[in-house]
Amino acid sequence: MQLGMIGLGRMGGSMVRRLLQAGHEVAVFDVRPEAVAALVAAGAHGAGSLQELAGQLRPGRVFWLMLPAALVDEQIEQLLPLLVAGDTVVDGGNSYYRDDLRRAERLRPLGIEYVDVGVSGGIWGMQRGYCQMIGGPAAAVQRLDPVFASLAPGAGAAPPTAKRTAAGSAESGYLHCGPAGAGHFVKMVHNGIEYGLMAAYAEGFNILRQANIGNAEQAGGDAETAPLREPAAYRYDLPLGDIAELWRRGSVIGSWLLDLLADAMAEDPALSKFAGRVTDSGEGRWTAISAIEQGVPAPVLSAALFERFASRQRDGFANQVLSALRAQFGGHQEK
Amino acid sequence: MQLGMIGLGRMGGSMVRRLLQAGHEVAVFDVRPEAVAALVAAGAHGAGSLQELAGQLRPGRVFWLMLPAALVDEQIEQLLPLLVAGDTVVDGGNSYYRDDLRRAERLRPLGIEYVDVGVSGGIWGMQRGYCQMIGGPAAAVQRLDPVFASLAPGAGAAPPTAKRTAAGSAESGYLHCGPAGAGHFVKMVHNGIEYGLMAAYAEGFNILRQANIGNAEQAGGDAETAPLREPAAYRYDLPLGDIAELWRRGSVIGSWLLDLLADAMAEDPALSKFAGRVTDSGEGRWTAISAIEQGVPAPVLSAALFERFASRQRDGFANQVLSALRAQFGGHQEK
Amino acid sequence: MQLGMIGLGRMGGSMVRRLLQAGHEVAVFDVRPEAVAALVAAGAHGAGSLQELAGQLRPGRVFWLMLPAALVDEQIEQLLPLLVAGDTVVDGGNSYYRDDLRRAERLRPLGIEYVDVGVSGGIWGMQRGYCQMIGGPAAAVQRLDPVFASLAPGAGAAPPTAKRTAAGSAESGYLHCGPAGAGHFVKMVHNGIEYGLMAAYAEGFNILRQANIGNAEQAGGDAETAPLREPAAYRYDLPLGDIAELWRRGSVIGSWLLDLLADAMAEDPALSKFAGRVTDSGEGRWTAISAIEQGVPAPVLSAALFERFASRQRDGFANQVLSALRAQFGGHQEK
Amino acid sequence: MQLGMIGLGRMGGSMVRRLLQAGHEVAVFDVRPEAVAALVAAGAHGAGSLQELAGQLRPGRVFWLMLPAALVDEQIEQLLPLLVAGDTVVDGGNSYYRDDLRRAERLRPLGIEYVDVGVSGGIWGMQRGYCQMIGGPAAAVQRLDPVFASLAPGAGAAPPTAKRTAAGSAESGYLHCGPAGAGHFVKMVHNGIEYGLMAAYAEGFNILRQANIGNAEQAGGDAETAPLREPAAYRYDLPLGDIAELWRRGSVIGSWLLDLLADAMAEDPALSKFAGRVTDSGEGRWTAISAIEQGVPAPVLSAALFERFASRQRDGFANQVLSALRAQFGGHQEK
Repeated sequence: MQLGMIGLGRMGGSMVRRLLQAGHEVAVFDVRPEAVAALVAAGAHGAGSLQELAGQLRPGRVFWLMLPAALVDEQIEQLLPLLVAGDTVVDGGNSYYRDDLRRAERLRPLGIEYVDVGVSGGIWGMQRGYCQMIGGPAAAVQRLDPVFASLAPGAGAAPPTAKRTAAGSAESGYLHCGPAGAGHFVKMVHNGIEYGLMAAYAEGFNILRQANIGNAEQAGGDAETAPLREPAAYRYDLPLGDIAELWRRGSVIGSWLLDLLADAMAEDPALSKFAGRVTDSGEGRWTAISAIEQGVPAPVLSAALFERFASRQRDGFANQVLSALRAQFGGHQEK
Repeated sequence: MQLGMIGLGRMGGSMVRRLLQAGHEVAVFDVRPEAVAALVAAGAHGAGSLQELAGQLRPGRVFWLMLPAALVDEQIEQLLPLLVAGDTVVDGGNSYYRDDLRRAERLRPLGIEYVDVGVSGGIWGMQRGYCQMIGGPAAAVQRLDPVFASLAPGAGAAPPTAKRTAAGSAESGYLHCGPAGAGHFVKMVHNGIEYGLMAAYAEGFNILRQANIGNAEQAGGDAETAPLREPAAYRYDLPLGDIAELWRRGSVIGSWLLDLLADAMAEDPALSKFAGRVTDSGEGRWTAISAIEQGVPAPVLSAALFERFASRQRDGFANQVLSALRAQFGGHQEK
Repeated sequence: MQLGMIGLGRMGGSMVRRLLQAGHEVAVFDVRPEAVAALVAAGAHGAGSLQELAGQLRPGRVFWLMLPAALVDEQIEQLLPLLVAGDTVVDGGNSYYRDDLRRAERLRPLGIEYVDVGVSGGIWGMQRGYCQMIGGPAAAVQRLDPVFASLAPGAGAAPPTAKRTAAGSAESGYLHCGPAGAGHFVKMVHNGIEYGLMAAYAEGFNILRQANIGNAEQAGGDAETAPLREPAAYRYDLPLGDIAELWRRGSVIGSWLLDLLADAMAEDPALSKFAGRVTDSGEGRWTAISAIEQGVPAPVLSAALFERFASRQRDGFANQVLSALRAQFGGHQEK
Repeated sequence: MQLGMIGLGRMGGSMVRRLLQAGHEVAVFDVRPEAVAALVAAGAHGAGSLQELAGQLRPGRVFWLMLPAALVDEQIEQLLPLLVAGDTVVDGGNSYYRDDLRRAERLRPLGIEYVDVGVSGGIWGMQRGYCQMIGGPAAAVQRLDPVFASLAPGAGAAPPTAKRTAAGSAESGYLHCGPAGAGHFVKMVHNGIEYGLMAAYAEGFNILRQANIGNAEQAGGDAETAPLREPAAYRYDLPLGDIAELWRRGSVIGSWLLDLLADAMAEDPALSKFAGRVTDSGEGRWTAISAIEQGVPAPVLSAALFERFASRQRDGFANQVLSALRAQFGGHQEK
C-alpha cells in the first residue's frame, strides 16, 4: 500500500522502516532534510516539501502524521490547501482525543477522512511491532488495514488467550476502537495505566531498598521524632537487581515493564545515573481528568501522576505551608 | 490538688504554670536544674532527683510525666522502686497507645494506677488551655479531675453546641475516653486528622499560588511534554495572605489552623523562611497503621503522611526507578 | 444601594433579606412567584418578569444572579436584550471560573461589566454573613462595595490576626481577588480545601468508630484472610459525640466544620439517618483538574473527591476487575 | 532429595506433584486423609500423623509447611517435640516476616534451621513453576537448592535479560534474598506491588467502561450537581475485551495479569459474575505498614489497598459523616 509519512523522529522514522520492510511504498517528509535522506537510503521516496509529498501520492492519498501533539494542528493547516475529497489524514502522535473530535468535525464536510491512532511500543516498536489503538470512520480504517497489520506485532507476539473465541485484529495488536477520538482515548487510558504500573514497581523497590534502615543509628529521642519501634525488623540489604530478575519468572507480577527494569538494574542496581526528575507527557493528566469528569474514582492513577509532579518539586509551597503551620502551633523548627 | 511533674520542657513547663495559677500545689523535676529553678520561681516545689520529688508528695501520689515518647519507659523504670500501691503515674506525652496497654498491665498488679493523657494545644496551651484526651481506670481519672479541669480551656472557650443536651467534661475540653490507652488512641487519631487538615490547606494554597503559570513562557512543543492547553485560564496573581485572612470569616473552612496560617502569612505571604522539609512525629504514622489494621480506608490521612515523607526526599529511589523505566522504553532523558 | 436579585432560592432569598436589613433597596425576580411574594413581604420590590425588574432599577443597574451554575448562561442570554452600557451583571452562584472568562469577554465590548462572586456560608450565611471572593474590573467591584460589606460577616466575626498590618476588606470577609474569574477560582479552591477538611474528619471518626473491632470474633484462619494480629489493641468503644465536642476547645483541630459535626452528633452520634451517598457539586472536581493542569500535586484533595465517587458505587467495575483477576490467578472466590 | 510436606491444600498439593515429577522423594501429611491419599496415588509417601511423617524421613530432615499463616505457629509447636538438631523447618506459606524473625530465633538455639519461602504463582504454579523468595541461613538454603530448582519455572520461562552478566538462581526463578524473614519480606512487597498493578488496570478499565456517560441523560440543573460540561466527549462504547487482548501485543503495559484479564474478559467482558467485593490477604497491608514505618511514600500501593477496603463498604461511617456535614452547612439532602 502507498502512504505519505510526515514527521521522521524516533517514532516516525522507525515506523517507516518497518513499513518498507513489509513491502509498502512510503513517501516521507520532515523539516530536517537529513532525516528524509536517511529513509531514502532505506527505500523511501523523499520529499522536500509538503507539496512535493502530496504530488508523489496517488489519489485516495494517506498522510500519516507522527509529530509532537503541539504541532499537529499547525501541520494540518499547512496540509489543508493540498488536500482533496477522498484523502485521509492519520494522526499517529499523542494528541488529546478532544482535538481529534474537533479535527474530524472540521475535515468531514470537506470529504477528508480523519483517523486517530494511539501507538504504543516506544523505541522497541521497530523490533517488537507497534500496538495500535484506532479511531475513525470504519471505511477509512478498513482501507488502512494493510498498514496497521504491518506495523503491528502480529498474533505470534503473545500466546493465544485460552477462552477467547472472537476473531479480529486485536490478536494481532491493532484494533478499531470506535469513532473519531476513540483511538487516542484508549491510548490515553493505556498511558494512565502505565503510570500506575510504573509507580507500583517504583514504590515497591523503594520499600525494598529502605529495608535496612534499622541499621542506621536512630536520631529519635526528642519530642518531635518517633524512633523506629523495631529496628531489628529492618536490617535487610536486599539484592534489588536479582529480585527484579527473579520476579520475571513464575510470579504474578511479571510484565514487560519488569523486564525493562531488570535490564536497567542489570547495568546498575542503584540506578545512580538517574536523578529522579520524572516528566509526564499529557496522557496521564488527561486520564485523571477524564476520571474526574466521569465521576469515576482513580486514586491509584492520580497518585502516580502526583508523585511525578512532586519528583519535580512542584509540591514546594505546599510543604512550606506545612512547616509554617508547625512552627505556629508547636514552635517546631525545620530540621 | 497536689501533683509531681516530671519533664519541664515546652509543654511540661507551661502546664505547671497553668496549674500553679489555678492554685494547685506542684512539685517539679527535670534533668536540667535551670528548668526546675524557673518553675520554683513561679511557685513550684523544686526537686533535684526523683527521690526528692517522691518525698515531697503526700500518699496517693501523682507523678505526671511530660517527656519525649522514647524516654517514658526508661523513666518509669527509674521511678518504679519509689512507687507504692495507691500511687498514680500519668503519661501526658505522645506515647503510642499500645505502650499504654503494656504499662498499665505491668503496673496494675502492683496497685499502681496508670493514666494516659493525650494533650493538644501546643505552645498556645498555657494561654488557651489544653485539650485533654484521657484513658485509664475511672477512679484514678476521677481523682485527677481538678487537675484536668484546670489545665482545660473551660466551657467558655467555644460557644455551646445547639443540639447538645449531654452534660460532662467534654464541654470544658477534657474527656475520659475509655480504659488504658484510650486517651492516646484518641489523641493519635486527632493528630492523624490534623495532618489531613493541614494538607488540605497546603495543597489548596499551592494551587492558588500556581494560578499564574499561564504567564510563564511554555516550553512544550516536544514530543514528551504536553503544553498547557489554555494558558489564558492561568493568569491570576492571587493575594494569598489576604485570602487566608478572608476565609476566617463566614466561610465553611474557617478553623484554628487557618487562623495560624493567616498569622504566618501576615508576616510573609511567601513563607520564604521555610524550606519545606516537614517532619512527622509518630501519631500520623500510627493513625494510618491503625486504619490499615482495622481494614478502614484512610486515603486522605495517608496521603497527607506520604506528602511529608516526600518533602524529605524519601521518594528518591522510586523516582529513579521511574526515570530508568522511561529511558528504557522511550529513550526519554531526564530534563 | 440599589440592586436587582435574580434567583431567590436558599441562597438568593437569604441574601436579599440580609441586604434589606442593612437598608439596601432590592428588586427581586424568580420564576416562582411565591418566592418573589415572600421577599416583597420583607420589603423588596417584586418583579414578575426580567423586563419588569430591569424597569425598576435606576441607570448603572446591577443584576445579581443567584442561580444553579447550569442556568446562568441561559439567564444572561435572556437578560442581554435588556442591558445597556453601564450595567453590571454579577454571578454569585457556583460557576466554573472559565465560564466567567468567556462571559466577561463577551460583555466587555458592550460596555457591560461582569463581576463573579464566590459565596461561602451556606444556609448559615444570613445569620453569620457571607464570605465573598470577588473577581472582575476594579471600578465595578468598588461600586458594589456597600453590597459586599453588608453581606459580609464583618470584622467582628473573628479575632484580629496578630501579625497582620495590611488594611482591607479581607478582615471583613470579602475580597477583590483579581480580574474576571478570580472570585470563582478562589471559591473553587476553597471548596476543594473543604472536601479535604471534611474527609480528614470523616476518616478519623471512622477509625475511632472501628476501634472496637478486636471485640468481634475473628474469622481468619483460612489462607486468604489475615487475622487481626492484636485484637487486644482494638477494644475501645469510644464516645464519638463527646469526642467531637471535646476537640472544639483547645485542640489544634478546632474548626467550624467540627462545630457542625458536634451538633450533628449531639443529635445522634451514630448519624444513622444518613446512608452515606455523598454528592459533589463541581468545585471539588474543578480544583483537582486545575491542580493537574498546573502540574501541582493534590493527592489529599483528589483522594477526598474520589472517596465521594466511591460512596456512590462508581468504583463498581474496577472492583469487579479485581475480583476477576483474583479468581484467575489464585482461584479466589468472592466472600 | 527427600522432603516432608505438611499441608496439602491448593498450593501444597500442587507443589508435591511438581516435586514428584522431578524425581524427589516426598512424604506428605494433612489433617484431611483424602488429601494424603490423592498424593499417595501420585507417588508420595503418606503419613497419618506428624509422628509418622517424622519417622519416614532420614536424618537432616526437611519439614516444609504449606499452611494458612494463622496456623503456622501452632503447627510448629506440635512439630517441635519431634525435631532434633540438624532438622530444617521451611515455612512456604504467607507468614508475616516478623513471625519468621521470632521463629528463627526460637529454633536456632535448638540447632534447628528455619527457612522462609515466599511462593508466587497461584494456581498456575504446577504448570508454570513457582517463583520463590527465600530467607534463612545460607547453608540450609544451599542444601535445599534441588527442591527450589525443581519447583521453580527455570531459566527458559522468560527470555534472558540483555545487559545481565551476573549468574545465579534468579534467572531460574528462585533467590536467596537474605537472612531469616527476607523471603517473606520480599514476597510481601511483591504482593504490595501486585495490588498496585491490579488497581492500575482496574481503574483504567473502569474509565474505559464509563466512556459513554455522555449518552446518558444528564440530571444536573440543580444547584448541587454539576452537569457534565462536554457530553459529546463521552460517547464511546468501547470493546473492553478486545482492548485487553490488544494490549497484550507490543504495548508498554503487557503483563501476566493482563493476560489473565484478557482471559476473564474473553468469557464475559462485563465480568458480570463478580460482585466486586475484594478481599485482601495480609501482604498488602503489611507492605503499606512497612512503608509507613520506614518513612517511605507509598501512595499508590496504599490507595490500592484502601480501594479494596472500600469495596467491602468499610468506608460507610466516613461517608455518613460527610453527608451529615453537608446537611449541616448546606441543608443538602442525600440523593
